[in-house]
Amino acid sequence: MKTTEAAVQKAYETVRKSAPSGEVATYIPELARINPDLLAISVIDLQGNQCSYGDAETQFTLQSVSKAFSLALVLQENAAAVFDTVGFEPTGNPFFSMLPMESEHGKPRNPFVNSGAIAVSSMIPGGNAKSSYANFLGFLEQICEEKPVMDVDTHRSESETGYRNRAMANFLKQYGWIEDVDTAVETYFMQCSTLTNVRQLARMGLFLANRGIDPLTQKRIVDEESCRAIVTLMTTCGTYDYAGRVAIEIGLPCKSGVSGGILAIVPGKMSIAAFAPRLGTHGNSEAGMELLKLISEELSLSLFQ
Amino acid sequence: MKTTEAAVQKAYETVRKSAPSGEVATYIPELARINPDLLAISVIDLQGNQCSYGDAETQFTLQSVSKAFSLALVLQENAAAVFDTVGFEPTGNPFFSMLPMESEHGKPRNPFVNSGAIAVSSMIPGGNAKSSYANFLGFLEQICEEKPVMDVDTHRSESETGYRNRAMANFLKQYGWIEDVDTAVETYFMQCSTLTNVRQLARMGLFLANRGIDPLTQKRIVDEESCRAIVTLMTTCGTYDYAGRVAIEIGLPCKSGVSGGILAIVPGKMSIAAFAPRLGTHGNSEAGMELLKLISEELSLSLFQ
Amino acid sequence: MKTTEAAVQKAYETVRKSAPSGEVATYIPELARINPDLLAISVIDLQGNQCSYGDAETQFTLQSVSKAFSLALVLQENAAAVFDTVGFEPTGNPFFSMLPMESEHGKPRNPFVNSGAIAVSSMIPGGNAKSSYANFLGFLEQICEEKPVMDVDTHRSESETGYRNRAMANFLKQYGWIEDVDTAVETYFMQCSTLTNVRQLARMGLFLANRGIDPLTQKRIVDEESCRAIVTLMTTCGTYDYAGRVAIEIGLPCKSGVSGGILAIVPGKMSIAAFAPRLGTHGNSEAGMELLKLISEELSLSLFQ
Amino acid sequence: MKTTEAAVQKAYETVRKSAPSGEVATYIPELARINPDLLAISVIDLQGNQCSYGDAETQFTLQSVSKAFSLALVLQENAAAVFDTVGFEPTGNPFFSMLPMESEHGKPRNPFVNSGAIAVSSMIPGGNAKSSYANFLGFLEQICEEKPVMDVDTHRSESETGYRNRAMANFLKQYGWIEDVDTAVETYFMQCSTLTNVRQLARMGLFLANRGIDPLTQKRIVDEESCRAIVTLMTTCGTYDYAGRVAIEIGLPCKSGVSGGILAIVPGKMSIAAFAPRLGTHGNSEAGMELLKLISEELSLSLFQ
Repeated sequence: MKTTEAAVQKAYETVRKSAPSGEVATYIPELARINPDLLAISVIDLQGNQCSYGDAETQFTLQSVSKAFSLALVLQENAAAVFDTVGFEPTGNPFFSMLPMESEHGKPRNPFVNSGAIAVSSMIPGGNAKSSYANFLGFLEQICEEKPVMDVDTHRSESETGYRNRAMANFLKQYGWIEDVDTAVETYFMQCSTLTNVRQLARMGLFLANRGIDPLTQKRIVDEESCRAIVTLMTTCGTYDYAGRVAIEIGLPCKSGVSGGILAIVPGKMSIAAFAPRLGTHGNSEAGMELLKLISEELSLSLFQ
Repeated sequence: MKTTEAAVQKAYETVRKSAPSGEVATYIPELARINPDLLAISVIDLQGNQCSYGDAETQFTLQSVSKAFSLALVLQENAAAVFDTVGFEPTGNPFFSMLPMESEHGKPRNPFVNSGAIAVSSMIPGGNAKSSYANFLGFLEQICEEKPVMDVDTHRSESETGYRNRAMANFLKQYGWIEDVDTAVETYFMQCSTLTNVRQLARMGLFLANRGIDPLTQKRIVDEESCRAIVTLMTTCGTYDYAGRVAIEIGLPCKSGVSGGILAIVPGKMSIAAFAPRLGTHGNSEAGMELLKLISEELSLSLFQ
Repeated sequence: MKTTEAAVQKAYETVRKSAPSGEVATYIPELARINPDLLAISVIDLQGNQCSYGDAETQFTLQSVSKAFSLALVLQENAAAVFDTVGFEPTGNPFFSMLPMESEHGKPRNPFVNSGAIAVSSMIPGGNAKSSYANFLGFLEQICEEKPVMDVDTHRSESETGYRNRAMANFLKQYGWIEDVDTAVETYFMQCSTLTNVRQLARMGLFLANRGIDPLTQKRIVDEESCRAIVTLMTTCGTYDYAGRVAIEIGLPCKSGVSGGILAIVPGKMSIAAFAPRLGTHGNSEAGMELLKLISEELSLSLFQ
Repeated sequence: MKTTEAAVQKAYETVRKSAPSGEVATYIPELARINPDLLAISVIDLQGNQCSYGDAETQFTLQSVSKAFSLALVLQENAAAVFDTVGFEPTGNPFFSMLPMESEHGKPRNPFVNSGAIAVSSMIPGGNAKSSYANFLGFLEQICEEKPVMDVDTHRSESETGYRNRAMANFLKQYGWIEDVDTAVETYFMQCSTLTNVRQLARMGLFLANRGIDPLTQKRIVDEESCRAIVTLMTTCGTYDYAGRVAIEIGLPCKSGVSGGILAIVPGKMSIAAFAPRLGTHGNSEAGMELLKLISEELSLSLFQ
């Protein structure tokens, strides 16, 4: 862990000193209020050794990072059904795009584009948004041994302005991919509004680095095959139309969110969470990606070498 | 190597016995003439241990597998220029699609869609198709220590019927991505028509499993960064709109061709070549993919676990 | 009128005798219940002479034919605002397509694609769906001197199943083209569910054949320029991706609906309404189009000769 | 004719005085050399009365205006075959777009998009580009009683730079819509390079205003049905993705070209040719369109009122 800690600290200090670039997301009013210069990183290995730098206890909402966990939850419940509803091919399109849907009878291309994530949320057991979200929170508690909560203001903000997501949900319903529009989008908005911090987020991802078993509790969270599917999809589709570049430059499975959080998995080794609110043009945290790049290079973590 | 050899043999025998599925490619008349039930696999590790099963000396043309090598060649020459011309994002579209090009000023999405590969071929030094192809063959000789040759009939067949590729080349020229239409497509058609077999093809890929250095000759073929880019792109874009499924089921960087050949890389470990002419709906060898899946599972080779 | 009457009767008898083709629309359960072999035609000239054949008093819902009238209503109110919100170019796409919207910031291509029609409905004065629809009915009463009513079952059917239209409305809201999603779609669903018959429908269209003035009441309904815009748009976009063929074969401005109704305008001469529930592959009444074709040929009505 | 002449003169003088807008086309180097402030208009009625204003004898190349005449020529030869190869639906896309082609097996949407026009040119009898073009010139001579010639420099310029058109032709060949790529594009480039002036161009179009018969020679040029198809297609597709606006504002069948020429037809009345090199954003002559708009308004020529 010493080498890792040194590499993480060095990366943190390098990024801390560099001029900030990118812009905070504003499409949800609530997101725009954050201090744009927050910066945090946390790494935890399979033995439970963890090191964190920067604003590691500062909370932010999961946003699209939540998609990795809702996918894990539903794969655990009924893996077979999931990939009947969402595909697993990259799109080459931005996360908000509706274009690929029509030609394929509205079937989402993968579980990480918004339409796919809404379809996944609709499969969380519960029957209504409140119960489904309670199950989602229960799942998170299981994987991080803490009780996350929802940010009420962000949720209201998402719910009031999420017309594109409502459009997608109606479209999914039109083609029969989801049962109920309101349940699906409300569950999705709530899961996106869940608060976390990098320390907790890195912990949440640990089972994904260990073939589906939480190495600290020894509990199986998802079966091996599902774990591999999630990690693979994080690599090919986890960072939108930037996934190709991320794969080359960082070489790790990542899932990013517009609040500036990123979860990265190093299979067999560790789980990494980064946070910095300024986003690049493709919707990923600029400083967060830079941190991951430096750490991956220093520790030679890329899967592709 | 013993464990590997046993796994490869077992996979070969399993696939050999199973009912063949898929159809031989017919879009080039020459391809349609092959015995559809050929089957071959070869694995070589970084120490040079190699085992082969089935029709391991039977020749087939490289087709799109050649794209991995032409990319290596031009990255070796001028890596900076290459990614100014071709991107590195997956497309989610079939290999023959021209759709993504117009909205992006004709810039190919990645070096493995046909338009990108034609642009890459146009960057092979030589000045005309004959010289450029001679350089391509020279590069292959360097990486496999044998002298491959071109199949004249396949080349004539490609050249006479490749209107879609000529269309793309004209389109690339329109936007200034290539210098000369005829040089680009002729070089491309010739490289696709190069004959190989699985034993030789596995050998050709070995430098990609060893960070750009041929482990047997100790010659550096491409720099580490270029090697990582090629291996990454094989993972995200090497099997067309099937790449997402291949990543989940096999978990290895692969480059396939319509003649039924596939090259798979296991970074730090080995290079694998498979061959079987029947293709699935996405244009990849059915039995070849099945072989890779069985071997990857048996030896736990997926990068994503 | 005698020549006209003879031509209309002859066309009716020809079509009556021919084998029916096409299928009744089923996407709204309510539409599927109709007798598929109903057939009706009515023609009214600027002097008020009217002749009708077949099931001329049988009621059907306006569906997309209503788009011509909602457009007239809002152009009368604020013509300038309308074409800031909806364009006037043909799309070459089916009526249900959402594809053109994203690349143009969600702006509907024209007022006759569904997204455009929903945007138009949102501009009907009223402030809520009930009042807006009352104004729509008031407008219809003004142009046909009768009081049309809504079919409650069709409206409920549309409202319960119209996910695609709700998707579009959410998308329009996302881009700021409409004020309120529910008001827009509800108004739209209600106007589509308005009952009419061919006698009444032909009467409704008469002002469009007379430069915006109802020739029987001498009331100006819309200004000349707006009238010309509506009639032009009926020609270029009134029959979806079949408009090019309709223009060649019939040569008249037409607006069709999935219930099987069609309104055709002969500028300076007459208004024609046809009705037959079986639709062709492009969503237009097969027998209705055939009637219009025969009448247009017999009376040499095409604008393009 | 007196009223017409007065209206044309007044329109000419109004436009002459107004500040010029738009830019001369530069995509063919040869086009960029023209005096941008040339302006010309000519009107000829079915009796042969003709009036012209401005630079009425100044020559310009037909460019896309030629598409109306090549279509007439091939419809005269074998009308049935033509619409098997090119459709007749508007595209809503710019003239250069290749996008609609792939999803429809490369079939051109209509004869006035470039791909459609190239397919039409390939159907001109001749067997090679030189003979086919000779037949095209022969056809023009028949309809204007003069001998037009080709501008050698423009043709060379088109031929040397027309990669997009060559791309389309290769694509058409791929799908079997044309016989020979070079014959098709060379014939197309030559027809586009044919010189004319507004006086001659108005004369050329006269048969289209008279149901296919040249009213001055009484020769039938095309059958009535073909004439109606051409005139209709000029209305719905003759001015690219500006056709919807042209139909509303001018209300006449028009075919424009990037050299700044426009042909407009008033069925049963007259043929109009305008010329002014500065183009608007959609590739149509700005001043030419303004002339047509003023004349159409003054003489109440719109078909849609």
